[in-house]
Amino acid sequence: MANADYGRRLSETRKRMSDAGLDGLLVSNPSNRRYLTGFTPKDGDITETSGWVLVTPKSLGIVAGPFFFPGLEHEIAASGAEVLLADGRLFWDLVAERAQVDGVKNLGFEKDWLSYDRYARVRKALAEEIALTPSDDLIRHVRATKDAGEIEQLRRAADVGDRAFRELLTRIRVGMTEREVAATLEQIMQDLGAEGPSFPTIVGAGPGSALPHWEPTDRDLRAGEPVLIDFGVIVDGYCSDSTRTFCIGEPEPQLVEVYAAVRAAQDATVEALRSGIRRGRDVDAAARKVLDDAGYGDKFIHGLGHGIGLAVHELPSMGRLRVNTPEMDAELAKVEQVPEETVVTNEPGVYLNGWGGVRLEDMLLVTKDGVEVITERNPEQIISLPVR
Amino acid sequence: MANADYGRRLSETRKRMSDAGLDGLLVSNPSNRRYLTGFTPKDGDITETSGWVLVTPKSLGIVAGPFFFPGLEHEIAASGAEVLLADGRLFWDLVAERAQVDGVKNLGFEKDWLSYDRYARVRKALAEEIALTPSDDLIRHVRATKDAGEIEQLRRAADVGDRAFRELLTRIRVGMTEREVAATLEQIMQDLGAEGPSFPTIVGAGPGSALPHWEPTDRDLRAGEPVLIDFGVIVDGYCSDSTRTFCIGEPEPQLVEVYAAVRAAQDATVEALRSGIRRGRDVDAAARKVLDDAGYGDKFIHGLGHGIGLAVHELPSMGRLRVNTPEMDAELAKVEQVPEETVVTNEPGVYLNGWGGVRLEDMLLVTKDGVEVITERNPEQIISLPVR
Repeated sequence: MANADYGRRLSETRKRMSDAGLDGLLVSNPSNRRYLTGFTPKDGDITETSGWVLVTPKSLGIVAGPFFFPGLEHEIAASGAEVLLADGRLFWDLVAERAQVDGVKNLGFEKDWLSYDRYARVRKALAEEIALTPSDDLIRHVRATKDAGEIEQLRRAADVGDRAFRELLTRIRVGMTEREVAATLEQIMQDLGAEGPSFPTIVGAGPGSALPHWEPTDRDLRAGEPVLIDFGVIVDGYCSDSTRTFCIGEPEPQLVEVYAAVRAAQDATVEALRSGIRRGRDVDAAARKVLDDAGYGDKFIHGLGHGIGLAVHELPSMGRLRVNTPEMDAELAKVEQVPEETVVTNEPGVYLNGWGGVRLEDMLLVTKDGVEVITERNPEQIISLPVR
Repeated sequence: MANADYGRRLSETRKRMSDAGLDGLLVSNPSNRRYLTGFTPKDGDITETSGWVLVTPKSLGIVAGPFFFPGLEHEIAASGAEVLLADGRLFWDLVAERAQVDGVKNLGFEKDWLSYDRYARVRKALAEEIALTPSDDLIRHVRATKDAGEIEQLRRAADVGDRAFRELLTRIRVGMTEREVAATLEQIMQDLGAEGPSFPTIVGAGPGSALPHWEPTDRDLRAGEPVLIDFGVIVDGYCSDSTRTFCIGEPEPQLVEVYAAVRAAQDATVEALRSGIRRGRDVDAAARKVLDDAGYGDKFIHGLGHGIGLAVHELPSMGRLRVNTPEMDAELAKVEQVPEETVVTNEPGVYLNGWGGVRLEDMLLVTKDGVEVITERNPEQIISLPVR
């Protein structure tokens, strides 16, 4: 990747390892793997991994099979990662060998990102005197801060997403089904050079728009009701994530009213971040207050937003939190801290069962100097497409 | 799903549990979950599961959140599964509670399909006197045998795949890139009602066809050289998987020769299965012998085929095996046993580095009465498209 600051990424990872008492880290989260090395292959399901990264104070290695190496050395050249080629050898044996050579005493692994079976195999392969310790995903905290190259990538992804949506609007017709709209949008993304959608496109027409995780059905689009589309693209590995709610023909009055409330909540998010608020729950509360005051507080049933980068959901997390203890509070404070240079989504919504919903989502670049909306902004008034 | 024999599925699962000394099984493999209950939602990555199934001698429960229930009861009605609703409660607490109620003493979990973190959470939630035991994926052995409804579904998937490929051939032009061909085919699949591709479509033109796991690039299609397309669709959850190798214009003589050898190897597979051979390695050997005799033995660098169903790769496994010990032999014999009613792929290939490759893949229905090719057969002679 152009401009990737691999040096910072690795040194901050090592610092977090050291803080956690680890002198080795086995990285199996594919986004973390790419972040540290540039290695792009995807994983299949939990049983099918394309490679692992092993970080020690002395080395950065990528364990992968001959399907990828030789072949992808150019991807990882800038990171300085060394290939530990699993050609006729098993991943865990290579990990054990390098851990031994580097004198690792306490090897961490990403406990959310490794199956029990792989854990057991690594444990068995490791010399007995090396500890194998379940670790939180340390690198996600590093990833929350975006370097200059990543911000450029995210701008490009946001731009491709915007262009795809504008093109979609020219093709929307009454009578198309939710499923057809989703397929059309995903085709446009591909035509514009996206690797694919960053998650399965959500299209909800009328009542379907009231369910935040609706899957497109054969329900057709009708005039006057809300049409909600939540979509994203992947461009060179980086994700976009936007939600637009619009209407074909004249919107009914309730739709105009709900839209205005959600749009005002988006403004409150930007205002809160501009004023220097950096705790996710407080940003969420600022947006939520607008919806509370409009009488829709209990209809905003999810969090306000999330970081975005190589994965569509990253840190920081901005949402309501149920905090029961001071320990939990301290733990949560780490995941909701908005760092100095980051990109987050801003996605308040109001959902009225049986009628429909409005969610508006933009991507925000937050820096110490301010807040910039890097997607096209959701317009102040709901888009009303001509009936055709 | 129509005609799903949930009774057989559950009783065979319970029998395998009992053989393994388990009186409970936590199912996290999404295909197994659907197989036992009909529950269709997909999982996200390893950290994002839509639900778990808990099987005990007394009950069949599905643990899922309120995103899906109420809402999907109709999907699971035929299986008799009970919903254990995780509404404000955690999956592992519900598992622990039901295990307690059912008097489970030894709860197995699918060690390849559960992250270490989820394992640790279940362990912590369970009463101390209940053992939590890493288990192999027992249900994949049950799934290797297809019931009548599944065979119908696989025929439908094979048919949609065939129709998509035929349509693609009418659109192929010299100068299209591998990537454009893949996108076109995936769009056709969707137009024909497929849920999507069953794996990322492989398109290799010329030298790219020599790499079995090639990802489509911007290389253009040229006359005379091999074009290899490995693709599949998902229809109502069931997968197809086919590979076609063809040519634009007149094929060069080497291509004609390699194609004939691979095609003859396919015939040998069918012959071996018809003659009653039911051990994967022996079926593989029969096809491999044809390529050996043609002088391409060392260019057939992967296994012959695999079962297919809800997942694109299922049991049985038909390939070469490196067997070092009698124990390993006994273990492998279980995964390569071709059951009485099953569907497998038949996909020999020859790969010549720098030049290209030929792989031909059909789907075979194997029953006690015979062998039927349920995809369109790869033709005896290589398809030569008009240059346009």
